[in-house]
Amino acid sequence: MPLFLTSTLSPITLAGPPVTMTDSILIHNCTLLTTPDAPLIADGWLLTRGDTIAAIGSAADTMPLPETTRATIIIDGQGKLLAPGLINAHNHCAMTLFRGMADDLELATWLTEHIFPAEATHVNTEMVYHCSKLAAAEMILSGTTSVADGYFFEGEAAQAFVDSGMRAVAAHGVIDFSAPGVPDPAGNLEAVATFLDRWQGRNPRITPAIFAHSPYTCFAQTLQGAKQMATERQVPFFIHVAESSQELEMIRKPLGTSPIRHLAALGLLDPQTICIHCVWLDDEDLSLLAKHQAAVVICPQSHLKLASGLAQASAMIERGIRVGLGTDGCASNNSLDMFREMDIFSKTQKLRTLEPTSLSAREALRCATLTNAEILGLEKTGQLIPGYTADLILLDMHQPHLTPCYNQDLLVYSARGADVQSVIIDGRLVMRDKKILSFDVDDTMREVRRLAEQLPGALH
Amino acid sequence: MPLFLTSTLSPITLAGPPVTMTDSILIHNCTLLTTPDAPLIADGWLLTRGDTIAAIGSAADTMPLPETTRATIIIDGQGKLLAPGLINAHNHCAMTLFRGMADDLELATWLTEHIFPAEATHVNTEMVYHCSKLAAAEMILSGTTSVADGYFFEGEAAQAFVDSGMRAVAAHGVIDFSAPGVPDPAGNLEAVATFLDRWQGRNPRITPAIFAHSPYTCFAQTLQGAKQMATERQVPFFIHVAESSQELEMIRKPLGTSPIRHLAALGLLDPQTICIHCVWLDDEDLSLLAKHQAAVVICPQSHLKLASGLAQASAMIERGIRVGLGTDGCASNNSLDMFREMDIFSKTQKLRTLEPTSLSAREALRCATLTNAEILGLEKTGQLIPGYTADLILLDMHQPHLTPCYNQDLLVYSARGADVQSVIIDGRLVMRDKKILSFDVDDTMREVRRLAEQLPGALH
Repeated sequence: MPLFLTSTLSPITLAGPPVTMTDSILIHNCTLLTTPDAPLIADGWLLTRGDTIAAIGSAADTMPLPETTRATIIIDGQGKLLAPGLINAHNHCAMTLFRGMADDLELATWLTEHIFPAEATHVNTEMVYHCSKLAAAEMILSGTTSVADGYFFEGEAAQAFVDSGMRAVAAHGVIDFSAPGVPDPAGNLEAVATFLDRWQGRNPRITPAIFAHSPYTCFAQTLQGAKQMATERQVPFFIHVAESSQELEMIRKPLGTSPIRHLAALGLLDPQTICIHCVWLDDEDLSLLAKHQAAVVICPQSHLKLASGLAQASAMIERGIRVGLGTDGCASNNSLDMFREMDIFSKTQKLRTLEPTSLSAREALRCATLTNAEILGLEKTGQLIPGYTADLILLDMHQPHLTPCYNQDLLVYSARGADVQSVIIDGRLVMRDKKILSFDVDDTMREVRRLAEQLPGALH
Repeated sequence: MPLFLTSTLSPITLAGPPVTMTDSILIHNCTLLTTPDAPLIADGWLLTRGDTIAAIGSAADTMPLPETTRATIIIDGQGKLLAPGLINAHNHCAMTLFRGMADDLELATWLTEHIFPAEATHVNTEMVYHCSKLAAAEMILSGTTSVADGYFFEGEAAQAFVDSGMRAVAAHGVIDFSAPGVPDPAGNLEAVATFLDRWQGRNPRITPAIFAHSPYTCFAQTLQGAKQMATERQVPFFIHVAESSQELEMIRKPLGTSPIRHLAALGLLDPQTICIHCVWLDDEDLSLLAKHQAAVVICPQSHLKLASGLAQASAMIERGIRVGLGTDGCASNNSLDMFREMDIFSKTQKLRTLEPTSLSAREALRCATLTNAEILGLEKTGQLIPGYTADLILLDMHQPHLTPCYNQDLLVYSARGADVQSVIIDGRLVMRDKKILSFDVDDTMREVRRLAEQLPGALH
């Protein structure tokens, strides 16, 4: 490092309230992963200004001296790697309450005897707020800076993301059943409109969106109404589709077609539609997704744990379909750690093809950063480039399981969320030295434990 | 907790050299997982004496007062879970040097252009000692207290385990090629005999053993000679078998049989034989394993990453075959975290059967503790019972990703190695508050980085 940094600047000890986004942060003396496919840069530095990456370089460059000396926070990145924050493209955050409540059960038993009854009686505004905040804590601690969420009482979830410091696409649910917050499905689209009215343009970190539950739980006209509203309001449209073989039958029997062909026939597939799961697709389904440029999000651990199957992710990518990556809600995972998800994503695709070259570590990194940002409409997000949003994670590489380090594949096959030491979202330091600065996590854990005690079987 | 503990005993601050095994350790005020299938015990305590668990109970019991007050170390387990240490039943520890050196390659390219050349030129006594110690650090930090290792220069590996404080089954390799340490395969069995002479009965934590590489790299008479020596010396006998479809062909073409039937015909299958991998088995192979009571060890992540396939683990267990779990060497994984391995083990078996009830979290826990101990001949190891070895791990449960806690399934689907806070092996506190006390890990990382710099492409 140039001498002036270590001799004239002393790191600032954080105390008091979290810094605001108008601050400037300098991270120096670290390894840089600017984008999944670029070689790692040793001895690099990065400067933020407000919510944006202002400048970036290696020690060989000259740092912009006047600006770096004005940085409010200076972080010595010795032994650390600075990377773009990971993005989780599918979650039902509030379901942290049900984490591990009922595992290893038949799908029907799990849903009808455990998840649906618990949701019917224990999902309310308080639950969604605290349990989404718990999810945010877990995600920040494991290096996820943006999440796409979809659940009931989505306004409470959005507020939890605002308060936690995360970036989020918060999608209001639509389902043709009585649901928490919307007892009469006739009021479905009105509830969504109210939510959009409230959240569009309200906070630069929150993108409101619409999440239609699935082709087997929503009538055709509901799906079309929801998609039309998404198009008019220019917000993302999510839908669970082709998750299980049971779903194939549920669509095939009454309609004589596949779930994807059903969506295509309704005019729902376009570049702003994000199809979640897509485990059970045939060749024609793949062609339709490619033709309409609809995006896909895979949730590998959920697909394994619920025994849904194995999505053809590498084949989709080869056909030019944008494939993102998400954890799903943590009742069916049961972890929100995107490092774990990237690892299993890459490895299980090799199992599908029996080719060790399938879905490389770098491809998994790309899905969890650049592609997820692109799919979710998060502009200038997912890589370290001046002018891009300052969503950054700093990993502690000075650990046995990350030694030696040959290249960034280590992040997928060896690293884990717990290696993340500091997190910057939207230019704001929300975690430093594994301590979340943006809110009181102990308080959130206490609230969620209190809620869990009302469910059968909670230990603490 | 009874009052006397908090009022009359003050926790001892550790300083200076690590305690010896003659000490007594009391962990109190914690949640206890005594064995994979038992309900969690809240507010429990456990006392060690020497290398053994002396007593265990819940707050409702009376602690043995005179003994607990004599405990040299007292650990307040508030918010923590005490569990049996995990056991890794297959590893090539020294291969930490090659972690991430060459990923996502065709098997033949990976082996012949990267791994074999690196092994031929960079495997020596110094490398095996330091790189095995690095593996030990990673394993201890992630809650593994025992490992079954098999590599070249196994005496150096055994010494690394002695020095790191781990328990190990150290198996000397046998292969009918020129290998590091044994340039002429004619000297194979003699090298093994010398190793056994040196290590049998030498250290209570080290079980020497024999590891025949595979049926396609060892001649029939070598395999029989090695197995005969294992039987005479009463040590475990390991062999890689039926790992890939290529191996099936390599055996089928010259011998007209399957790898397992080949071993059975040579008389190699018995309860002291441990068959590693077993991905490609037919029904007759399964019957032979069951009939001869040979053990199997599955390495799920390695099988995925190398695109070997998916072993029929749950079917094997149903047929009464003992199925253990291991990470394999970390060049083909690339992590030695047994929590990660248990998670993927359980989840991928559900994919194989498309039944979410297959290989439950508790079954995975059982494989990684009780079954692994049984297979490796580690007596009185793998559960918390008075009289059993004091191999214990303490996990920090006061974290968002482990909240709420309904039961021990959380350890498989949500926990990760980084949650382990303290580790006791053979009654000795080898890690406290995530700091290894038994050796200088920084020094080991420095040595391994120095060795890695001699290989192409190392960053640090």
